[in-house]
Formats: sequence, structure tokens, C-alpha cells
Amino acid sequence: MNTATALLVIDVQKGFDDPSWGRRNNPSAEENISALLAAWRVAELPIFHVRHLSTEPGSPLGGAGGVFKDAVRPLAHEPVIEKYVNSAFIGTDLETRLREEMLDTLVVTGLTTDHCVSTTTRMAANLGFSAHIVSDATATFDRIGPDGKFHTAEHVHEMALVHLHEEFAKVVTTRNTLENLQQPSPG
Amino acid sequence: MNTATALLVIDVQKGFDDPSWGRRNNPSAEENISALLAAWRVAELPIFHVRHLSTEPGSPLGGAGGVFKDAVRPLAHEPVIEKYVNSAFIGTDLETRLREEMLDTLVVTGLTTDHCVSTTTRMAANLGFSAHIVSDATATFDRIGPDGKFHTAEHVHEMALVHLHEEFAKVVTTRNTLENLQQPSPG
Repeated sequence: MNTATALLVIDVQKGFDDPSWGRRNNPSAEENISALLAAWRVAELPIFHVRHLSTEPGSPLGGAGGVFKDAVRPLAHEPVIEKYVNSAFIGTDLETRLREEMLDTLVVTGLTTDHCVSTTTRMAANLGFSAHIVSDATATFDRIGPDGKFHTAEHVHEMALVHLHEEFAKVVTTRNTLENLQQPSPG
Repeated sequence: MNTATALLVIDVQKGFDDPSWGRRNNPSAEENISALLAAWRVAELPIFHVRHLSTEPGSPLGGAGGVFKDAVRPLAHEPVIEKYVNSAFIGTDLETRLREEMLDTLVVTGLTTDHCVSTTTRMAANLGFSAHIVSDATATFDRIGPDGKFHTAEHVHEMALVHLHEEFAKVVTTRNTLENLQQPSPG
């Protein structure tokens, strides 16, 4: 992990606790993101919080649902990127900020694996950033396919990582990310 | 289907016939795209061909692999968008062209479902276009996950559509797209 590595925490908002989303996988995601945030703060590495402000009427992510969950609350000086679509790079200044701060590597965490996290990771890679996705610091929900078939959140999550693997991102864990962070840089 | 609907054909290049990609699903994709192209030409609706020019040394999509397959060859007046990453919207003028021509709906086809097709569809939706993805006019390859587990092309394809469904795109078939095209517009 080099000093140009930013931690990105996507959409970990109270609105995702709304029961209308259905069953979720990986209940430890918030705890893992919290551990990554703590380590990033100790190492004084850059952190970007991303908040989704839904424009859809009645969305659980609008209004009070936009509030960050307690475990991942930003500190006063940490930047918060507000977005209105899945990708944190569309309609925001995230790319400009990363380039201004000479950041070339992103460690991506948050909700949900197959929607906002995958889309943001794909764009990060296509914009030329090196992307890592932390498999146990992301999560998603059960989904119904276009043919009406049911898919568990665990499987939707797994396949989102399969799609990203090698083409867009290095798939890592919280544990190996923390271990890499603690290793002294060479030289 | 309204007159502001463009057909997008992504990366249907001879380079994807290289055996190094492994086993593919949906061998009928090219035939279905060819049928859509024919119908779009008869209806005089806009078509955009996308070609991936790989910058990776030895990639089957570089050099002669950049040539379009015979079944989907562009006509002389049809625009070809050249791209270097997965998304047809990054490093290209596709968005500008669509807006200049007042096109608001995209029917997306091509290779591969989980990589370039999914990424382009996600960005299309996030940029405000209405996206349709034609399930049987796309295809992908067997993939190995980050844990070394094998996934068939059929399943990788299916799950890529599950991820896009309702959030980013309407999942349609060649047949219902052709039927909609032949229906007279209301009014």
C-alpha cells in the first residue's frame, strides 16, 4: 500500500437498514469498514466518504436515509462526496480531487456490491486508477432476475466480485489490506 | 421504441474468436445482432458501432483482432466509436454524439456481457439515458473467480443481467425488440 492510496466508503447509510431492501449478506461489512477507517486514520492516509442522495420519491436513501451509519461516520475534516446515481464519478468532483491529490490507488468498500460499488470500481479502473475491492467490506441484497428467478445476496455478491476480478480490480480482504498497511514502505 | 433510440454494438471483433478467451455462451449473439442491425437500417434509426483497441501487449483485441466480425460490419456512413477501456463512454465522444442527435434511449448489444457491455450500460443509465440490454445479443466467456472457483459463461452472463435488471437497464430479447420496432408509433 503506497501513500497515494485512498479509502473509499460508498453509501453506508442508515437508509440501507430499511426492511424494503430484503435480506442482506455479510453483516460484518460495517465492522470491517470501521477497522479500515481506523487504520487509515492512524496512517494519515486519505479517506473519501460517498453519500447517495436518492432523487426517487419514497426511496429509503432520501431524507433521513442519507445519514451515515454510526460505525462509519466521517470525521469533520474528511471529505464527503454527494452523488445522485450509482457511480461516485458521475456528477461529482471525485476524479478531480483524486488527481489534485495525486492519488492513484483506490480501496473500495461499501454498499451495494453489484450496484454502486461495482459501478464505481469499474469507472475507477477505466479512468486509470488502480482499484482494490475489499470483499468482506462490501455487501448486497437478495435479488430477483429479469426472468423472475431468485438469487441470494451471497451469490449476487460473489458474482459481482467474479465480474470485477482481474479485469477491473484486485479483490482483497480487510485482513490483508490491514496487514499491507502496517508493513513499512520499501526504501 | 421511439425514433430517439440508438442501437449500440460493442466490440464484436474477430479478436474475440481467439481460443485464449476460453468457452463462450450464446453462439447466436452475432446472428441476433445482425438481425437487429438489418431492422435498424430498414427503420432508418441510428446505429453506433464500438471497437475496442487494446493497449495491452499481445491482446487478441489489438491489431488484426480489432476488425469487426463479418456479420456485424458497419456500413460506410455508420459511426464507429473507438475505445481503449471497457466503457464506450470513457475517452470517446459517444455521449456528445448521442446528445447532439437528441438520442435518449440505447439498445445495447455485443461482447462481453459482464465486462464492456455491463460497464457501458451502467454508465449509459447513470448519464441519464434509458438503457435496454438485449440478453440474447450479448455473450461472455467462462471465468475463474478470485478464489479460483470456476464459473460457466452461461452463469456469468445470467448474473451480469441480474445485476443490471431494474437498476440500470430493461433486459429484453432480440425478438421483442424487433416486434417493438415494427409497431407503428402512437399518434
